[in-house]
Amino acid sequence: MRFDHVGVATRDAADLADLFDGLLDAPVAHEETFDGMGVVFLELDDGGYFELLEPDDGGAIADYLDREGPGIHHVALATDDLPAALDRARDSGVDLVDEAPRPGAWGHEVAFLHPRSTGGVLVEFVEH
Amino acid sequence: MRFDHVGVATRDAADLADLFDGLLDAPVAHEETFDGMGVVFLELDDGGYFELLEPDDGGAIADYLDREGPGIHHVALATDDLPAALDRARDSGVDLVDEAPRPGAWGHEVAFLHPRSTGGVLVEFVEH
Repeated sequence: MRFDHVGVATRDAADLADLFDGLLDAPVAHEETFDGMGVVFLELDDGGYFELLEPDDGGAIADYLDREGPGIHHVALATDDLPAALDRARDSGVDLVDEAPRPGAWGHEVAFLHPRSTGGVLVEFVEH
Repeated sequence: MRFDHVGVATRDAADLADLFDGLLDAPVAHEETFDGMGVVFLELDDGGYFELLEPDDGGAIADYLDREGPGIHHVALATDDLPAALDRARDSGVDLVDEAPRPGAWGHEVAFLHPRSTGGVLVEFVEH
């Protein structure tokens, strides 16, 4: 397991991307519209990413912004074997949001764990 | 710049450390009491860390837990030149919590940026 990205909920991904590029030398590596959100990946020197999530019109991130305001939304850990990582989560007694890998942004396979069983931390597993 | 750690506010660091070790294969690499908090670093395969922060009796993390509940508190980026990173932050128009490097946990030099100017994301710079 290694840090893949930190997901950030924002109302203006373009503005935040400009700031983080100047601040962290993290240029845009990829952007797309996915699941009703604008998604922008900024790449750090070592290959880690910030994933900026901007809602288009409603949806989970819009609800999150209304409830919590902008900021860190989740942390994603990369694995080379996502089904095995989910089995390990089940063995650890962790509730899963996604019982099986599903397609995520940038063509990756992803699965989220429920923060109620991970100390309030929304954890995503991602396999490139 | 590279991901150094994700800081997590928790009311029970020992319990969360056990969970994350089983879930992520992230054993305890270091623990200490720092600035009135219990601080536990869990090390991932690639050398990235989770930093678990448990308040002892009051203080900023206790206030955070009362206000926000447990979960991700900040993201820390490692740099080899912390003063230069702070200059770059000033040049980007970012408000600083710490105008100069100060001693942090584990003997590292650290400085925090104010989340009001970084999209609600509490960013820490750290130099080992």
